[in-house]
Amino acid sequence: MENRICKLFNIEYPIIAGGMVWCSGWRLASAVSKCGGLGLIGAGSMHPDNLRHHIRACKEALTYTAPDGTTACKPFGVNVPLLYPEMEQLMDILVEEGVKIVFTSAGSPKRWTPFLKEHGMTVVHVVSSSVFAKKCEEAGVDAVVAEGFEAGGHNGREETTTMCLVPAVCAATSLPVIAAGGIGLKCQIKACEALGAEGVQIGTRFALSAESSAHENFKKHCLALPEGGTKLLLKKLAPARLAQGSEFTATVAKMEENGATKEEMAAYLGKGRARKGIFEGNIDEGEIEIGQISNLVTKIETVEEIMKSLTD
Amino acid sequence: MENRICKLFNIEYPIIAGGMVWCSGWRLASAVSKCGGLGLIGAGSMHPDNLRHHIRACKEALTYTAPDGTTACKPFGVNVPLLYPEMEQLMDILVEEGVKIVFTSAGSPKRWTPFLKEHGMTVVHVVSSSVFAKKCEEAGVDAVVAEGFEAGGHNGREETTTMCLVPAVCAATSLPVIAAGGIGLKCQIKACEALGAEGVQIGTRFALSAESSAHENFKKHCLALPEGGTKLLLKKLAPARLAQGSEFTATVAKMEENGATKEEMAAYLGKGRARKGIFEGNIDEGEIEIGQISNLVTKIETVEEIMKSLTD
Repeated sequence: MENRICKLFNIEYPIIAGGMVWCSGWRLASAVSKCGGLGLIGAGSMHPDNLRHHIRACKEALTYTAPDGTTACKPFGVNVPLLYPEMEQLMDILVEEGVKIVFTSAGSPKRWTPFLKEHGMTVVHVVSSSVFAKKCEEAGVDAVVAEGFEAGGHNGREETTTMCLVPAVCAATSLPVIAAGGIGLKCQIKACEALGAEGVQIGTRFALSAESSAHENFKKHCLALPEGGTKLLLKKLAPARLAQGSEFTATVAKMEENGATKEEMAAYLGKGRARKGIFEGNIDEGEIEIGQISNLVTKIETVEEIMKSLTD
Repeated sequence: MENRICKLFNIEYPIIAGGMVWCSGWRLASAVSKCGGLGLIGAGSMHPDNLRHHIRACKEALTYTAPDGTTACKPFGVNVPLLYPEMEQLMDILVEEGVKIVFTSAGSPKRWTPFLKEHGMTVVHVVSSSVFAKKCEEAGVDAVVAEGFEAGGHNGREETTTMCLVPAVCAATSLPVIAAGGIGLKCQIKACEALGAEGVQIGTRFALSAESSAHENFKKHCLALPEGGTKLLLKKLAPARLAQGSEFTATVAKMEENGATKEEMAAYLGKGRARKGIFEGNIDEGEIEIGQISNLVTKIETVEEIMKSLTD
């Protein structure tokens, strides 16, 4: 497949594994890159030193000896949510470790794109509207991820779905567009291509893979979700798609239904809920972030199996 | 295009114009059928006598002399929301007028499908989940419309989008599947085909066509909507996607945010809001039902222009 996304990242298939908090360590990222896609390390859940460790482990796993005897490293990237608390330190690590591809999200593309471009990196920004896609183009990013309402975890306020968002973003910018949200099957990749996307970013299916660092309880809970088993909640704070069937989700839904204020929601949410749910596997007290297609994923597969089913 | 939907309805293109309240009279339905799609009359907003009038006018508009000198009528259908108050009377009219295609929605497919099938009609039911699609197959319907979260007006509780819903419904049933919700452009039709749909039902774009019987104020308001200009509201009653930028929508959104009860919502809603908004063009007091793709529709077109852009 020759397209701008494959060229931009020097990858075989225009399939990117989202850099998901508590799921996307070096194991998942390197496994996807080894199979010809682009793996991303999710910096959002890592302290700076931990991020450095994951970048180094990923590089090691992806380094190979080329036919001419020189060593090379297959491409991988790092996803950085721009509300990260130790941003300056994180950016220094990306430079020091020679990271070549950075996906930024949850913030303005203007703030860090010039810095990353100066250091020779390829920069992609995640958007949920075509207004933001235009801002990305002005800021000098190389591509955008257009992420729809179906996506797990943090989500746009406008609730625009992938079906509606991708054609709008493609019309608004000349940048290559990567579709995200509601994509886990090959037919959904084909659908996104029809909408104008040149690549896809897949979260949920990789979050539930063998190589994902999410807790087994998290994977089991998500694999058992029925159709309609996720819900966009926390709308007064930052909207996030959560799995149903847990005490935390039920409480949040009930509070919202009853008109709880932003402050009441923030007080109940507290800190560390995503870690508790995704990494520690505490389903009832943690935040179980997962996408709407979770009902279409029914078993834990290896990344190799997933990539094969998406590209065969 | 040879596919099961074209065969089932004996149409040229597997494109159905949704039977929308206050929009889909005989003018819109016959115009779509004349262009090789399937037009539906929206019975939901018609008293029985008025429905009879629209069916007769539609038949007249679609009657032609075949090459062998006999007269024939191009296919069209009627959409019947199963919460219609004068159902028995309406069903008699469908039989008396020799209607051949009926789309049912908003109710159980078991109640009326046997009656309609006994009278030789083709029956299609609208669903928003694959659980309901299976029930449709058991009830003996001929095809299902899988309608996603993007759709205007009444909508499913599970908020499953077209991208996620269509593959799930296709996997759950052997019936031909018509995708709906978020479809207004040719690329979106192609995307739905990739997802496994054999046809599409288009609402918003036809609701804003020249032949739609919606009020000019309604069309103007919807054509000016920005991306993200609709919202799924009235969730404690029956969820409906409404246009923003009106007093009614703003009040409903505010009440929901503040935790208004079902009873409070019903009291504010009252009766006749859809008529007021769509047919009388009272934007601030009426219910402006429209789909999420309204931002991709920017001018009033004739049905012929729309069909050309979708099939060329």
